[in-house]
Amino acid sequence: MKLSTRVTGLLNVKYPIIQAGMAGSTTPELVATVSNAGGLGTIGAGYFSSDRLEQEITYLQELTDLPYAVNLFVPSDKLYIPEKVEHMNAWLKPYRRAFNIEEPVINMTEKQQFKDAIDLVIEKGVPAVSFTFGIPEQTVIEKLKERHIKLIGTATSVEEAIANESAGMDMVIAQGSEAGGHRGAFSETASQLTPLIGTMSLVPQMVDQINIPVVAAGGIMDGRGLVASMVLGAEGVQMGTAFLTSDESGASQLYKHAISQSKETDTVVTNVITGKPARGIENEFIHKMNEYDDEIPDYPIQNQLTNALRKEAANKGNAQWTHLWSGQSPRLVQHMSAWALIENVVKQANEIMNR
Amino acid sequence: MKLSTRVTGLLNVKYPIIQAGMAGSTTPELVATVSNAGGLGTIGAGYFSSDRLEQEITYLQELTDLPYAVNLFVPSDKLYIPEKVEHMNAWLKPYRRAFNIEEPVINMTEKQQFKDAIDLVIEKGVPAVSFTFGIPEQTVIEKLKERHIKLIGTATSVEEAIANESAGMDMVIAQGSEAGGHRGAFSETASQLTPLIGTMSLVPQMVDQINIPVVAAGGIMDGRGLVASMVLGAEGVQMGTAFLTSDESGASQLYKHAISQSKETDTVVTNVITGKPARGIENEFIHKMNEYDDEIPDYPIQNQLTNALRKEAANKGNAQWTHLWSGQSPRLVQHMSAWALIENVVKQANEIMNR
Repeated sequence: MKLSTRVTGLLNVKYPIIQAGMAGSTTPELVATVSNAGGLGTIGAGYFSSDRLEQEITYLQELTDLPYAVNLFVPSDKLYIPEKVEHMNAWLKPYRRAFNIEEPVINMTEKQQFKDAIDLVIEKGVPAVSFTFGIPEQTVIEKLKERHIKLIGTATSVEEAIANESAGMDMVIAQGSEAGGHRGAFSETASQLTPLIGTMSLVPQMVDQINIPVVAAGGIMDGRGLVASMVLGAEGVQMGTAFLTSDESGASQLYKHAISQSKETDTVVTNVITGKPARGIENEFIHKMNEYDDEIPDYPIQNQLTNALRKEAANKGNAQWTHLWSGQSPRLVQHMSAWALIENVVKQANEIMNR
Repeated sequence: MKLSTRVTGLLNVKYPIIQAGMAGSTTPELVATVSNAGGLGTIGAGYFSSDRLEQEITYLQELTDLPYAVNLFVPSDKLYIPEKVEHMNAWLKPYRRAFNIEEPVINMTEKQQFKDAIDLVIEKGVPAVSFTFGIPEQTVIEKLKERHIKLIGTATSVEEAIANESAGMDMVIAQGSEAGGHRGAFSETASQLTPLIGTMSLVPQMVDQINIPVVAAGGIMDGRGLVASMVLGAEGVQMGTAFLTSDESGASQLYKHAISQSKETDTVVTNVITGKPARGIENEFIHKMNEYDDEIPDYPIQNQLTNALRKEAANKGNAQWTHLWSGQSPRLVQHMSAWALIENVVKQANEIMNR
């Protein structure tokens, strides 16, 4: 078994390790460190304006000449329903008051923002783009492929993977149920918010059904996870929580501390924080939101409704009222440079493969 | 990497492959075939009277001289609450009528049944016993250990694994969220019925925290799953769904067919069928039971209340009103002898390890 795969070939990187594009928690330093260490760093641009994205890319290009990716959230067709927003605003009022936060103005500029990001990615010659929450329109895919930008899709089920392959993605991330943060899903199951298939089940079933390379994600923290994923047929891994707690990550000390103090049983998948299902450590905020007596507004509305509240709580050192995205392997986090993390993962993987 | 581990040593088997003790679906032929092929077959005795268990062991001993296990359900302290039973009986009435089924008489003989099974296991010199739903009392463990019977615990979290180790289990099964059938859990999490930790997350975190060997379970169907589990630090695997659909299994054709026609997104974890959380293919029965307007009676009561109904539905060829336990990898099931299955798993594992 070798660490050079179709994924390393397509992305032109040394190791088949992708740092997940964790919106809100990546920094140019993190992305550059990962890429300079031989992996693929990813700017988590899901929440970025095009100005902000341009700044990050410009700064990143000073820090590395090696390939990196930009992660974008594919916009949905969700509507702004004033009554739902009013209802949630009324419900959030006492909590906002407690943190001295104003009611936010909601913008529904997702689609324009995505369009601008695509134009910018082309203009800046970004080497790779990864997508979360769906597959962009065919015209967008064609435009990116013409510029030889590598396209990384996200799938939480075999059917989503097949859809990604059909749309022309170069590779697809198999996001297992263990993964922290937003579920990249764009399909629903009868009884659950989104598919929640464990990585051990998802990867081999996906590999058997598609021809493009599969990148495993969910629960992977070290060389054991990397080699296990490759044994299952993946040609690379995407790691989120492991990089979130690295030195270069943009996550606050509060956030990193909460993850390192938590157990594998402490996370839940919930849509109450942003309007999209995501895995994070259960806290007071999630408990209170679970008592909400109506449907949670869709993403991006709920995200904007709770955003300032969560930020202010984090600023005040209150981990109970902010988001604490984490996968199911918090016991395996290590606090070190992303560079050392990649070195350790590769070293352990090589030791296992040579056993 | 080698297939001989502490697990093969302790159990005195050739391969680190345990056939899960699927209550209701094992046959002496299945257990013997697995053991004769070099794995550890397991009599799923969770629902058995001691007479039935004695018959099965006696017959099995004619079919194999090699080690096997008996799986037992550790009794709980749940009470029989007449009002809850009456309420459920009233609710089930129209469905029972449709299948021409009488209201069952509930017995609360779990504890006596477990005690009798332990005595029988000792009397018959059963080589290994695995436990689901908890850890037996210390006196039981000591009695079994005195007879050098190997003890296999089940854990769905690191804390449950530590409890198993402290109690004196020889090894522990790490039951990942992908696993089909009953969750072996005996702890609750704040927001879920039981811990649902993916195998990719659960195994390495468990291996790091205990010294007894870990056996991975959940989503493992082939040589890829076996080697991936061992890379994560497990010293063996337990496979359920893969053996459920084998030729020697006691599962009906209806049941096997339903699994082979299903996708990874078709299962749910529910307590509506037996009163304990278990993963199975979502069907009409689960949908209807989800509409029940009160708390589901505890196991073993709910199991007994719905048992005849499910059996009769299966007899009538109705897969919508029976239980269809399955893990999250139904796309990987193969219809073959359990012997060929083990041969294939080992062959593929060796190929991967020699790559």
